[in-house]
Amino acid sequence: MSEKKEDTYKSIKWNGWGHHGAQMTLDENGKELMVRYLDGRPLPNMLDFVYKEMMGGKGPKEVPALTPSIPTEKAIAMLNKPLLNDAFLRDLAAALAKDQVLLDGLSRLSHICGKNYRDLWRVRRGMVERAPDCVVLPASHGDCVELMRCAQAHDVIVIPFGGGTNVTGGVEANPLESKRMVVSVDMRRMNRMRRIDKKSQLATFETGVLGPDLDAQLEPHGFMFGHDPDSYTHSTLGGWIGARGSGAMSNQYGDIEDMVVSVKVATPTGVIVTPLTSRTCGVDLNGLFIGSEGAFGIVTEATVKLERIPEVKYYEGYLFPSFEAAFKAFEECNAKGIKPCTMRLYDDDDFRMSLALSTAKKTFLGTVVQKGLMAYLRSQRGWDMRRISLVVLGCEGTSARVKFQRAEVGAVFRKHGGFPAGQKAGQGWQEKKYDLPYVRDFALSVGLWADVLETSVLYAHALDCWRAVKEAVRQVWAEHNRSGWVGCHTAHQYKFGCCLYFTFASTQTDENDLKLFLQLKTRATEAILKFQGNLTHHHGIGYEHVPWMNRYMGPGCMDVLHSIKSKLDPKNICNPGKLLPSAPRESESKTDLEKRQVKEQMFNKMGIPGALKAHLVKTSGWKICFCFLLRFSSRLPWSTRVYCK
Amino acid sequence: MSEKKEDTYKSIKWNGWGHHGAQMTLDENGKELMVRYLDGRPLPNMLDFVYKEMMGGKGPKEVPALTPSIPTEKAIAMLNKPLLNDAFLRDLAAALAKDQVLLDGLSRLSHICGKNYRDLWRVRRGMVERAPDCVVLPASHGDCVELMRCAQAHDVIVIPFGGGTNVTGGVEANPLESKRMVVSVDMRRMNRMRRIDKKSQLATFETGVLGPDLDAQLEPHGFMFGHDPDSYTHSTLGGWIGARGSGAMSNQYGDIEDMVVSVKVATPTGVIVTPLTSRTCGVDLNGLFIGSEGAFGIVTEATVKLERIPEVKYYEGYLFPSFEAAFKAFEECNAKGIKPCTMRLYDDDDFRMSLALSTAKKTFLGTVVQKGLMAYLRSQRGWDMRRISLVVLGCEGTSARVKFQRAEVGAVFRKHGGFPAGQKAGQGWQEKKYDLPYVRDFALSVGLWADVLETSVLYAHALDCWRAVKEAVRQVWAEHNRSGWVGCHTAHQYKFGCCLYFTFASTQTDENDLKLFLQLKTRATEAILKFQGNLTHHHGIGYEHVPWMNRYMGPGCMDVLHSIKSKLDPKNICNPGKLLPSAPRESESKTDLEKRQVKEQMFNKMGIPGALKAHLVKTSGWKICFCFLLRFSSRLPWSTRVYCK
Repeated sequence: MSEKKEDTYKSIKWNGWGHHGAQMTLDENGKELMVRYLDGRPLPNMLDFVYKEMMGGKGPKEVPALTPSIPTEKAIAMLNKPLLNDAFLRDLAAALAKDQVLLDGLSRLSHICGKNYRDLWRVRRGMVERAPDCVVLPASHGDCVELMRCAQAHDVIVIPFGGGTNVTGGVEANPLESKRMVVSVDMRRMNRMRRIDKKSQLATFETGVLGPDLDAQLEPHGFMFGHDPDSYTHSTLGGWIGARGSGAMSNQYGDIEDMVVSVKVATPTGVIVTPLTSRTCGVDLNGLFIGSEGAFGIVTEATVKLERIPEVKYYEGYLFPSFEAAFKAFEECNAKGIKPCTMRLYDDDDFRMSLALSTAKKTFLGTVVQKGLMAYLRSQRGWDMRRISLVVLGCEGTSARVKFQRAEVGAVFRKHGGFPAGQKAGQGWQEKKYDLPYVRDFALSVGLWADVLETSVLYAHALDCWRAVKEAVRQVWAEHNRSGWVGCHTAHQYKFGCCLYFTFASTQTDENDLKLFLQLKTRATEAILKFQGNLTHHHGIGYEHVPWMNRYMGPGCMDVLHSIKSKLDPKNICNPGKLLPSAPRESESKTDLEKRQVKEQMFNKMGIPGALKAHLVKTSGWKICFCFLLRFSSRLPWSTRVYCK
Repeated sequence: MSEKKEDTYKSIKWNGWGHHGAQMTLDENGKELMVRYLDGRPLPNMLDFVYKEMMGGKGPKEVPALTPSIPTEKAIAMLNKPLLNDAFLRDLAAALAKDQVLLDGLSRLSHICGKNYRDLWRVRRGMVERAPDCVVLPASHGDCVELMRCAQAHDVIVIPFGGGTNVTGGVEANPLESKRMVVSVDMRRMNRMRRIDKKSQLATFETGVLGPDLDAQLEPHGFMFGHDPDSYTHSTLGGWIGARGSGAMSNQYGDIEDMVVSVKVATPTGVIVTPLTSRTCGVDLNGLFIGSEGAFGIVTEATVKLERIPEVKYYEGYLFPSFEAAFKAFEECNAKGIKPCTMRLYDDDDFRMSLALSTAKKTFLGTVVQKGLMAYLRSQRGWDMRRISLVVLGCEGTSARVKFQRAEVGAVFRKHGGFPAGQKAGQGWQEKKYDLPYVRDFALSVGLWADVLETSVLYAHALDCWRAVKEAVRQVWAEHNRSGWVGCHTAHQYKFGCCLYFTFASTQTDENDLKLFLQLKTRATEAILKFQGNLTHHHGIGYEHVPWMNRYMGPGCMDVLHSIKSKLDPKNICNPGKLLPSAPRESESKTDLEKRQVKEQMFNKMGIPGALKAHLVKTSGWKICFCFLLRFSSRLPWSTRVYCK
């Protein structure tokens, strides 16, 4: 992959998902409002879904007030004044080329944060606590080493930035770090395959390579990587490693930790290269860097295993009378060791959401009706049509293997009431699997909000956890007299557990929305922990999950983590505030430490009116009046449009 | 599993493998000497194999001189005087029951070392540098915590001891630690399943549980563990974790790191429990304790994944015209994602060894001859019969899966010249898979020696490494005018590499044999590293591989490891001398450190006449005259017997 003429970040939205211009739209065709998909095709069922599921289905059928983003120039003008460390910049200038160190507003704006609801809600309003002071574009491992050397010498904070698609606050500057310069390290110039070993099915890549660019370099050799997260088109190898990512085909090709064989890391105190071997001997250090989110340094290169491009990829759908019935089928598959490439089970709520995303007036389920099957399922099989759940089943491999696997899964599915729904359902998922963030952006622009949260649970607790999280989310809305929709899908089957992935949406009101979000996130996380779920399956810890890290990891593990952190990053310049709570100070009591850790966490401050100021006033003399204290809604073009069907 | 009346170690040989009385024998039946298997059946081909392959096939057909072990009483009498820390023993006595702290000679003798050639060669001659001063038998995690507390308070060395089957020096006291008391912690009373979660297919075990006892506790629930190393009958869960073990069915059920979900560790500075989750979030600390060989503390409990007992287990053999041809077949299986439970490929030398272990006068290959197939392979297929290699193929799972898998593997095998040899070859391996150490013991008793070494290589280097290691071993023998036999099998197929496992044997001469062993081990390891193999696939680092740890891990990784070690074990009481070379001292130069690390490693001192004394004379005033300086051979009943056929 040769270097591109234009740096990737320039073509990417700073206030939404994907490239400039790619978005869903709302248009008026005669009297009827219509949501249109990225390619312009209408989504005839979407507004009804929004009305019924997110807005409670009461009152007039209105589109919520529009909530567009502020324009770029305004956003740049609203950025905080950069905090520049001149000595650092001088040293860096000697080590890197001029075009690798950027101080301009647009570059800073493009590297403020990731792409979750809270991130975008704020940047779209200019409510940003702290933009990075500088963006650096390393072009090689050597550049990263130089950068880390300068940063360590001058006490400058370094945050690796891959595709910027992180959804747990992992790439955002810590505004509580009020005295040190912050550098966002955009890794996307580091996009080359350094070497390939076809016989061993291994290749070494620079970690700034985006998903499609990675596979494009492997494809001529007959290989693929096999990592296929929703963010695939816009996320990088380094991001996958940093957040301990997992793709939709992880059952067959592994989670990122199964795919990465060796890493090269530029830490503030030196370079670490883990051994390249077909199996770790002694103790394993890869596990310390996979999932470390830049807290120990920058993972600059990684050697990864390759997969032969499969002869056949077969994706199809199965309908089940309920989530629980499908779950039972999954259980039997697991007990029998049946593990297809992908088994994604959408619960009833998620299934209805997927129907709303259909571009056909007659949905895929509608087609079923035409054939009289709907009636059959209802009358002959006694299905409750509101509870229907969908499984997307994917098998990949040799033609013989796919055939055999489809047969063995099919037998188990049918035994548990599964009804084959053909390839269309599987293709539908394949076509739109990278597009959900555009739906979220669309929601953000029409006065709604949507976000996701996920966990990994043991099978013994999976159904209880599924119910408890949905209940917790709905409870928060009920307490605030709000309506909303929450759905869930499960995927990534392990021998002993699986991922639960929740999507939820509601209507926007004012800048206090984020308080509701915090409550919701907190209560959902408590429900997850009650059922022994983990803090995240593949989104990472970021700053969002830091409040629960002590509890989740336990004191023994936290001691080890703090010790490793202080060994590799003694000045805490590597992405502070993420992954770990504040480090203990010598002779600090347990209670004092806990109090300070709570105070210093970003979770309940980012975007919450007054929270950051309240913190800073008490901890330092830095009293900049944050723009987010202003009420923005009045300045935005709120409007309401009635639509009719 | 209730506590047994007698502690396991009492029924196990201190000077060989397995239980008292279980051994191969040599008897004279009329004029003909005959080696007999454990069950008394004759091995009619064994002596010829020894003569031809190990003794060079020249000179008279003699059995080498017999070299029996010294008797138990003598071995006890020759133990070093224990170094007792009274304050520690007083503290410990307050925490544990009387029968948990043993100071008697037989207990000490039974916990001196593991069971590799070097270990047994020495204990059978009473040439032991340092027996543990005390054996402790914890009965619970709490006991281990108390033990670590006392050890830390009184600076006493702690070595976890599972089944004692380690072959890399992992459980032996460091005689260079001349001033601190050494405790061997026999874990085998900790053999209970603490809990089982059948829905999640998980169970928590105390780590002192032996393989068969572990599976016996799972079997009533319809589960098995699926870890099946050669040492299965005599090794423990804790040992597998400590040495990063792997079993013969690892392709399907995983290496130990894939099987362990959470560990509880008693370290000198506190207890660590890693999160129990279906997937690690944040960074992974399990990888730090799996493979840590007690260097960070004692892994007391582990939660492991369970496997349903498979409907069908089908093992069969395939003959190939050469190792290379079979390797090509394996390559194609890998590229196609075909991964049966077990694929063990024995090279020509290893294959002939397996024939020598046959109890039939007509070997399995002999049977083939009878059918005229040998002639067919030779004349019609042009096979060189000296180069024939054997694959043991094992498939486990549902009947349908096994059938499908056998078919897909079979097609690839036949394409590459593989010839189906039926279930007998597979059964033969299954029957004898735990018995090879008895053959080694037999060798030790008849003036031969045998040992193993293994590595894991990337596929690109596998064949080169296979050739280079065998060549290196033969070269050392040639330089010393010795004959010997070396064979290899490969198993444990990863996507990008596999394990190579070498077995070698030669004749004993005198106490300088171990010098030859060191040369051989060194040259083989250099060959392995030249071809990017790792230091061990599943035997662990122990003290045997420490000399190469700096080179293998690299300075960055070693820094991290030393830092973790000093965090968890600041006094270096946890199994010192194993896993890691000596820790750097403050302001020590790189050269000084390297020199000291070489000097302080056990590798080239254990059993080498004069080496330990030379070290200690220069480093401390401890000048005990070591018994190994005496020449023992004169005291042993050497004899020579002529045999004829």
